[in-house]
Amino acid sequence: MRENYEEYKSIIEDHLLDFIPNIDPLSSTLYESMKYSLMAGGKRLRPILLLSACEFAGGDAYIALPYACALEYIHTYSLIHDDLPAMDDDELRRGKPTNHVVYGDGIATLAGDGLLNTAFEIMFRDMFLHFDDPEALKQRIKAAHAIAKGAGVSGMVAGQVADIEAEDQQCSNELLEYIHLNKTGALIRVAVQAGLYLGGADDEMMRNMLSYADCLGLAFQIADDILDVEGSVDILGKNTGEDAEHNKLTYVAAHGMEQSRERLHELTEQACEHIADYYDNAEFFRNLVIKLENRTR
Amino acid sequence: MRENYEEYKSIIEDHLLDFIPNIDPLSSTLYESMKYSLMAGGKRLRPILLLSACEFAGGDAYIALPYACALEYIHTYSLIHDDLPAMDDDELRRGKPTNHVVYGDGIATLAGDGLLNTAFEIMFRDMFLHFDDPEALKQRIKAAHAIAKGAGVSGMVAGQVADIEAEDQQCSNELLEYIHLNKTGALIRVAVQAGLYLGGADDEMMRNMLSYADCLGLAFQIADDILDVEGSVDILGKNTGEDAEHNKLTYVAAHGMEQSRERLHELTEQACEHIADYYDNAEFFRNLVIKLENRTR
Repeated sequence: MRENYEEYKSIIEDHLLDFIPNIDPLSSTLYESMKYSLMAGGKRLRPILLLSACEFAGGDAYIALPYACALEYIHTYSLIHDDLPAMDDDELRRGKPTNHVVYGDGIATLAGDGLLNTAFEIMFRDMFLHFDDPEALKQRIKAAHAIAKGAGVSGMVAGQVADIEAEDQQCSNELLEYIHLNKTGALIRVAVQAGLYLGGADDEMMRNMLSYADCLGLAFQIADDILDVEGSVDILGKNTGEDAEHNKLTYVAAHGMEQSRERLHELTEQACEHIADYYDNAEFFRNLVIKLENRTR
Repeated sequence: MRENYEEYKSIIEDHLLDFIPNIDPLSSTLYESMKYSLMAGGKRLRPILLLSACEFAGGDAYIALPYACALEYIHTYSLIHDDLPAMDDDELRRGKPTNHVVYGDGIATLAGDGLLNTAFEIMFRDMFLHFDDPEALKQRIKAAHAIAKGAGVSGMVAGQVADIEAEDQQCSNELLEYIHLNKTGALIRVAVQAGLYLGGADDEMMRNMLSYADCLGLAFQIADDILDVEGSVDILGKNTGEDAEHNKLTYVAAHGMEQSRERLHELTEQACEHIADYYDNAEFFRNLVIKLENRTR
């Protein structure tokens, strides 16, 4: 497998727009609005995890590309809807005006709907190409189902609802963990899971890597919270141009900075332990979680 | 096949809530909000078309039930988002407060997202049950893909974007037809198409029934526009408690009442012609489109 995060990132960014279905000229605003948010930068963490997990299990990254891009479409829709005045009401994301600031609330809502729906169209179209290979078809249905489940009302959407509801109340540690686990963690987990299905991983690898992914997801959220407090540096190192969000539930606000750093270190070590048996083969995943912790120092 | 619209409707309404995934108690508001709109009444035209088309092609309605309910989840999400202040800003639907009036704009947005996502989870779960039957699996992927395509950026979402954009401008007949064809027509067409795939229809039946569905979809929109002008009676005969929408692009506003009635009659006759070869077997579909026209008299 590739060792370099940027190498996977180029694959994603070079092909991300290839998967938008043909759109009638009468819907050009819809296309522009979807494209605007898809190409507005970002770490591409989820699709990169999916591609790398597929290669880790022995598959080729390119067979996983439709699923990786579908996952990034889902992540992008969730950001567009999350930024709406009805939700977080954010005017900037990664230093650029948010989708609804540019296209209006109605188009932004529909661009989000369109991206979510397109994610599934992409996966179904890929299944069509494997009608003659029952095993390949099953792997793809499993991957698509995992993605749907992680993105849905038992996953990401549940986390977002809990996040909205928690804004007006004292938040228990249990609720905070529920929000993190679902709002951010669910898509990170299914990125790894879907990649492993597509690469043909066995049960043992699936178990170890999902344990790794759960640690990574929580570490990711805590690191994000630490960086938020320390001032607006993107989790993989770029300045975002945003102010830290205020009045937002964070791990740091609930547990303090020192305990947050300790927990992050613990999770980083645990993540590495879950993949220790793979030695150098798991170098990419080890680097990823260690780099994440180092960014917060 | 069953001859009675109400018989199919009972099947849908008895099972519509069966397909929501297990939701954590911490997300009970999400569940309530989705359920509120799913059970807020409605004609259930799209899922009924799906079930009846499946039986028409020789399948059993119950094998098509997950897809019919998924389609109704998609239709319901589209109504929730359409009613939002960012879109049509409607406070009543079928005489009841709209979702965002009850649950707030944020939860309503997420309930819509959750319903769309759940629709795909439902279909994937059903595919899992047919892993050992490659032919059944292919039919299901074709049905799910048709639904995704009709609901997406080459279908319903495209129609909604065009509808929003047309509000501020003089609308050409071409654009009006594009909106109707996509915003309402696309889901009606794929309801029939998905049902036929699931029932194992041959190419000839597919062609004839899709021509029927296209006439039905346009007839449905024109009848709806006529009833809107004549005063707030639901297209299948119930009083909705809503005022007719103003400043809304309609077929009647563009072509006048007389021409609209003529076009509706023409479409009704064309719809019946497309299924004439099936004689009494197509009685259900003939009754449906004729009843639609009669409601406007």
